[in-house]
Amino acid sequence: MDLLPVVLDLLGIFVFALSGALLGVRIRFDIVGVMVLGAVTGLGGGIVRDVLIGAIPPASFNDWRYLAVPLLTGLIAFRFHPDLVKIERYINWSDAMGLGLFSVLGTQKALIVGLDPIPAVLMGILTGVGGGVLRDLLANRMPSVLREDVYALPSLAGSLVVVISWELGVFRSWMLIPAAALCIVLRLLAIRFRWSAPRATDW
Amino acid sequence: MDLLPVVLDLLGIFVFALSGALLGVRIRFDIVGVMVLGAVTGLGGGIVRDVLIGAIPPASFNDWRYLAVPLLTGLIAFRFHPDLVKIERYINWSDAMGLGLFSVLGTQKALIVGLDPIPAVLMGILTGVGGGVLRDLLANRMPSVLREDVYALPSLAGSLVVVISWELGVFRSWMLIPAAALCIVLRLLAIRFRWSAPRATDW
Amino acid sequence: MDLLPVVLDLLGIFVFALSGALLGVRIRFDIVGVMVLGAVTGLGGGIVRDVLIGAIPPASFNDWRYLAVPLLTGLIAFRFHPDLVKIERYINWSDAMGLGLFSVLGTQKALIVGLDPIPAVLMGILTGVGGGVLRDLLANRMPSVLREDVYALPSLAGSLVVVISWELGVFRSWMLIPAAALCIVLRLLAIRFRWSAPRATDW
Repeated sequence: MDLLPVVLDLLGIFVFALSGALLGVRIRFDIVGVMVLGAVTGLGGGIVRDVLIGAIPPASFNDWRYLAVPLLTGLIAFRFHPDLVKIERYINWSDAMGLGLFSVLGTQKALIVGLDPIPAVLMGILTGVGGGVLRDLLANRMPSVLREDVYALPSLAGSLVVVISWELGVFRSWMLIPAAALCIVLRLLAIRFRWSAPRATDW
Repeated sequence: MDLLPVVLDLLGIFVFALSGALLGVRIRFDIVGVMVLGAVTGLGGGIVRDVLIGAIPPASFNDWRYLAVPLLTGLIAFRFHPDLVKIERYINWSDAMGLGLFSVLGTQKALIVGLDPIPAVLMGILTGVGGGVLRDLLANRMPSVLREDVYALPSLAGSLVVVISWELGVFRSWMLIPAAALCIVLRLLAIRFRWSAPRATDW
Repeated sequence: MDLLPVVLDLLGIFVFALSGALLGVRIRFDIVGVMVLGAVTGLGGGIVRDVLIGAIPPASFNDWRYLAVPLLTGLIAFRFHPDLVKIERYINWSDAMGLGLFSVLGTQKALIVGLDPIPAVLMGILTGVGGGVLRDLLANRMPSVLREDVYALPSLAGSLVVVISWELGVFRSWMLIPAAALCIVLRLLAIRFRWSAPRATDW
C-alpha cells in the first residue's frame, strides 16, 4: 500500500475542513455548525467521488482517521480562528490547497478503477470542487466554482498533469505533489491578481 | 423479517414528509410543490443512506408503501394544514420526530451491513439530518442542522445508544424506540428552552 | 444495441445544457461558469438516475460524447446567445424539451433494470427534474419544480405513457418520442397559458 496518497488525502481533508470551519466561524455558526460544515467540506468531495466510481461505502466511512481529522479541525478552527478581518484570506488559501490535492487524487483514483482519460479528468474536477460546492450550498452562498473567475481551470490543469503522465506510462505517486502544486499556485495567482475569464456580456 | 424497523421507518417518512409539506404550505407552494417537498423530505435521508451503504436501488423504490406514505401526507397537509400561525410549531415537532427515528434507524442499518461503530454513528446522523437538509436546500433556506443551535447533538445521542448497545451485544429492535425518544426529547427541549451551543464570536 | 435511446439521450443533454448555459449567461457568469452550469444541468439528471439504479460509474463517464455535447453547448451558448431580452424564453423551451426527454428515458431505463412500475415513474420524474434542480441550486434560485406552477405533472404524464405501454407489453423504442412530446407540449402549454395548480392559501 502506497502511503503518500493517504497522507495527501488526509491533508486535503484537513485544509478543506479548515476552509469550511472558518466560513462557519465567519457566518457565526455555533460550535456544532462549525464542525458539521468543516466535516462536510472536508469529506464531501471524496464521498461524491466514491459514490460515482462505486467505491461503496465511501473510504472515509471505513477509516476513523478520515472522520477524526475534519472534526478536530473544526474544533481547532472554532477555538483558535484568526481575527475575523483576516479570516477570508485563510479560507481562500485552505480552499486552494484542498482544490489542488483533491483534483489530482480524484483523477488518480478514477484512473486506478479503470476510467478513461477524459472521464478521469472530469472526476478529478468533481472531487476537487465537490466539497466546496457542498460547503457553499449549505452556507446559502453561490458556489465558488461559478462565482469565482478562475476556479475550475487550475483544477483542470492539475488533473491533466496526472492523466498525461499516466497515459505516457511514467506516472509515479510523487508526481501528485507537483501536479497539486501547479493547481494551487494557479489558483492563488488567480486570487492575487484577480484574473478573470471573459463574460458573455463583454461580447 | 423484523416488523418494527419497517413500521418505524414508515413513521419517520410520515413525520418528515409532514414537516416538508407544511413548510411548502407556509411558503405558498401549489399542491404539486407541497407533495414534492414532502416526498423529498420524507425519503431523502433514507435514499442518501442507501446510496452510501450500497443498498441500490434504495429501499424506498422497491416498496410502494414508501412512496404512498409521503405523497398522501402531502395531500393531507395541503388540505388540512393548521392555521399558518401555528404551522411553524408543527413543522418543528414533526421534524424532531423524523430526526430521532431516522438517526437510530440509519445507525442500525449501517451496523447491519457491517460498518464500524464510528462510521455507523456518522451514517445515523446523515440519515437523520439528510431529509431536512434537502428540504431546506430546495426551499432556499439555510439548513436547520447549521442554523439551529442544538440540532445534530440529539441525533448523536440517539445514535450512540444504538451503537453502544450493539457493541455490548445487548441490542434488540425495541431499543430503537427509547433511543429515538431520547433524541426527540432532547431536540424538543432544545427548541422549548432555546438551548444554544457556544459561538466562536463569544470567545 | 438500440440507437434511438442514445440519440434521444444526447439530445436531452444538449437541450438541458443549453438551458443551464443560457441561465449562466443571463446571470453574468464567465465562460467557465457557463460551461460548468451547462454540463451540470445536462448531465446531472442522468448521473442521479445512474447512481440510484446502481449503473456505476454513470454512463456519461464512459462515453466521451456525453461530455463533449454539454461542453460544446456551453461554448456555443456563450458565444452566440440570443439577446438577453429573449433569453428567458429560450431557457424555458430547452428546459421543457429536456424535461420531456429525460422523463421518458429515465422511466425506460428503470424498467430495463427491473424496477416496478411506480418506482419507475418516480425515477423518470427524478431524471427529468434532476438536472434542472441542480442548475437552480447552483444558481441560488428556488428550483423550478417547486417554483413553477405546472412542472412535475407533464413529467408524470410522459412517464406514465412509457410505463403503461411497457406493462401492456406493447412498448417499442419509438414510443419514447410521442411520450416525450406529450410532456413537452403540456409543459409549454402550462407556460404559455400560465396554468396553475391550487395553492393551500386558496382554501
